[in-house]
Amino acid sequence: MAKEKKLVESITSREEDFAQWYTDVVREAKLCDYSGVKGCLNYLPNGYAIWENIQADLDRRFKETGVQNVYLPVLIPESLLQREKDHIEGFAPEVAWVTHGGLEPLQERFCIRPTSETLFCDHWSKTVQSHRDLPKVWNQWCSVLRWEKTTRPFLRSREFLWQEGHTIHATYEEAEERTITMLNVYKDFVQDDLAIPLVTGRKTESEKFAGAQDTYTIEALMHDGKALQSGTSHFFGNTFADAFDIKYADKNNELHSVYETSWGLSTRIIGAIIMVHGDDSGLVLPPRIAPIQTRVIPVAQHKEGVLDKATELMNSLKAAGYRVGIDDSDKGPGWKFSEQEMLGIPTRIEIGPKDIENNQVVVVRRDTREKIIVSMDEIETKLGDILETIQKDMFDRAKAFLDSHISSATTIEEMNEKFNTNRGFIKAMWCGEEACEEEIKAATGGATSRCIPEEQECLSDKCVFCGKPAKHMVYWGKAY
Amino acid sequence: MAKEKKLVESITSREEDFAQWYTDVVREAKLCDYSGVKGCLNYLPNGYAIWENIQADLDRRFKETGVQNVYLPVLIPESLLQREKDHIEGFAPEVAWVTHGGLEPLQERFCIRPTSETLFCDHWSKTVQSHRDLPKVWNQWCSVLRWEKTTRPFLRSREFLWQEGHTIHATYEEAEERTITMLNVYKDFVQDDLAIPLVTGRKTESEKFAGAQDTYTIEALMHDGKALQSGTSHFFGNTFADAFDIKYADKNNELHSVYETSWGLSTRIIGAIIMVHGDDSGLVLPPRIAPIQTRVIPVAQHKEGVLDKATELMNSLKAAGYRVGIDDSDKGPGWKFSEQEMLGIPTRIEIGPKDIENNQVVVVRRDTREKIIVSMDEIETKLGDILETIQKDMFDRAKAFLDSHISSATTIEEMNEKFNTNRGFIKAMWCGEEACEEEIKAATGGATSRCIPEEQECLSDKCVFCGKPAKHMVYWGKAY
Repeated sequence: MAKEKKLVESITSREEDFAQWYTDVVREAKLCDYSGVKGCLNYLPNGYAIWENIQADLDRRFKETGVQNVYLPVLIPESLLQREKDHIEGFAPEVAWVTHGGLEPLQERFCIRPTSETLFCDHWSKTVQSHRDLPKVWNQWCSVLRWEKTTRPFLRSREFLWQEGHTIHATYEEAEERTITMLNVYKDFVQDDLAIPLVTGRKTESEKFAGAQDTYTIEALMHDGKALQSGTSHFFGNTFADAFDIKYADKNNELHSVYETSWGLSTRIIGAIIMVHGDDSGLVLPPRIAPIQTRVIPVAQHKEGVLDKATELMNSLKAAGYRVGIDDSDKGPGWKFSEQEMLGIPTRIEIGPKDIENNQVVVVRRDTREKIIVSMDEIETKLGDILETIQKDMFDRAKAFLDSHISSATTIEEMNEKFNTNRGFIKAMWCGEEACEEEIKAATGGATSRCIPEEQECLSDKCVFCGKPAKHMVYWGKAY
Repeated sequence: MAKEKKLVESITSREEDFAQWYTDVVREAKLCDYSGVKGCLNYLPNGYAIWENIQADLDRRFKETGVQNVYLPVLIPESLLQREKDHIEGFAPEVAWVTHGGLEPLQERFCIRPTSETLFCDHWSKTVQSHRDLPKVWNQWCSVLRWEKTTRPFLRSREFLWQEGHTIHATYEEAEERTITMLNVYKDFVQDDLAIPLVTGRKTESEKFAGAQDTYTIEALMHDGKALQSGTSHFFGNTFADAFDIKYADKNNELHSVYETSWGLSTRIIGAIIMVHGDDSGLVLPPRIAPIQTRVIPVAQHKEGVLDKATELMNSLKAAGYRVGIDDSDKGPGWKFSEQEMLGIPTRIEIGPKDIENNQVVVVRRDTREKIIVSMDEIETKLGDILETIQKDMFDRAKAFLDSHISSATTIEEMNEKFNTNRGFIKAMWCGEEACEEEIKAATGGATSRCIPEEQECLSDKCVFCGKPAKHMVYWGKAY
């Protein structure tokens, strides 16, 4: 019992200190730790396995929309990064510079990619000639580096893993459609596979990507009421095409600039999974993305036949296509249960002498701790049903939490009060002025515009802060 | 017809200029091209798709042996790289150095990883305590950077993609076994999935990895008779464990150093696929690794029903689990055939009005150009048989080539003559002295020891060069 306690007690409760709870869960579930390079993470097996499942699911969704994967260099020449004015202004302060190759100084500095628009554009400017070369719908899975001052596991680190998609098209409409298609791929993936409900929309001028004409975002709400930008899709118009001179000849041999998009989702999303679903016992992983969906735990495993039966069960579940583990270590059942809960494995299957006698097992749900007695003959199909139910219930609970943490305000005082009492997202009207956005941030102690949703409501005719005519309804939030 | 010619004529023949043929194939099949960063490649969709299939197959094989994936940082602090003496000596001349983060100079330089032994060891030195923490059998898929002076697509580039596995174990025997296990995983993968026959064995002192106690290698033979080191597995003993102070407490609470291994295979293997299987019409891809296994080519597609039937065929083959494409462009059939051949797609399926009338299709093998008439009703199963036959035949042909290019020599004159007439690998006895190895290299115009095979033969009692007593039979070759 001492050991059991130790495992759970090593996690601070969410209500006591959410930030500490987060750090404790990341550490105890062995998802990642800090490396010897300040601000850079080691992604450990338990954390990386989640990322591998995210990659597999998302990559499949990408390819269904015609995406092709590529890999472009980790280094960008300084002159190339400088080609697009807004882009270099946005990224120059936070890139790492390579100045020496081998024993010799370089003639030109290279930065480690913070994002790769410039490299894709450079390639296309040299290879795209005709409308027959279009569209290009490319993506790469890689890491990028941004020299952040303060870092937190998954949420903000100097190096992080992501995918970055880059596309060019013959027409404005086609590029715009791709931007929205990818936003929807992210939305479907995050809602369906990660069970995280979202608020989505367009970013304001001040919040959009360096060099973009429009940035679309998916925004999730963490258990502490803070927002997390979880994926973005950018429409560039001709900005980069013009900066890099990417032109194609149409059927009449007339030259036109291409239209470009880019879109990315990173390991940051693992932070969202932790902070949306986790509880005071640790991680709670959605079944569709969990590296292990069930762990078989033999009870009284020293008794004859128990271990054999447990192993047999594991093998039959594996053969049926489940991702299964077994804990046949010499630790006590209580410790084993705690560990399975800490790791967020969606179910455990307890099997002891009594169960074997009754030709049954006990399935315990991680999310609700409900115990479900299942006949051994039915476990192969029933487990699938239980996992699907967990997936659905996790989404529904998170959706109820999100809905109850969206409120609206027509004055800045009301906005402040809602942030204090109800946290979450606040809908409020906005005049469209950047200066006003800054004022709202100052007046609320840090609330930023999260997005302008497609479905607009008219909460008032006036801007929540300055009282001038309102242009948009905006979701505001305090964000990670 | 002009266009058809153009496509094939853009490739130099192998006999005329093998190096130029290689460059032409890489370019025309759009596998990769050089980026704006000297010596760094853009891996384009056709090339990267091959790598994705390699990753999927190899990763599955890794996991069957208990490997877990992780991701460690792209940067290594200089002090960490210096911890193991031989290792830093081997890599210092060829790493790229990061000296600035954002706008400020760094207190300590970081290099971009040329390989990650030091990072894995640093992590383990902080986290491994007990025998319960062992073994660790980890791997990462990433890119590494080595500041090479001369580069060639896939074969040698400054940045390349690879996997690097790193493991630590409680005992010498277990680590040694892991080294051999991974060598065999590579061997099985390359022979079974890439249809490339191999010579395998241990490296000599001068050829082994910086810091390793033993390096094992798989060596393939290219069509021009040159050897290509295609994957290596290293046994470190305690070298790194001692340099990084990685110790574990055994059951009696006594401290011991761990034993370490590492093993890697890179995008270089794509170069081997090209140079073992390719011909004067372009790439020839083994069916198991080919991104597209068959391309449906409608003949006289303007005739009613042809395009519909071709599309229907493609869809049914896709549903049956094949990787299928279709060329329904407005190019002529001749051009389409040439392109499919250039890309190395293992089969094409020609379907025209006559075929439809006869309820049949014509399958054409890329490797032999054999035309096989298959009933439409049987194509779903027959195509699988044809692909398996191609896979087997490709291996058998490459094996016959390899076998006919292994000869033996007992004098340096004989060795030279064989290199001139028969190229390939030459088996010869060696005294075990590094100096002698250098002399052989000089005397043969560049032949190096490729490996000491496990199965030794006694060709002579004396070293092929110095005449001193022979210690090992060695495979010698001129290598990429």
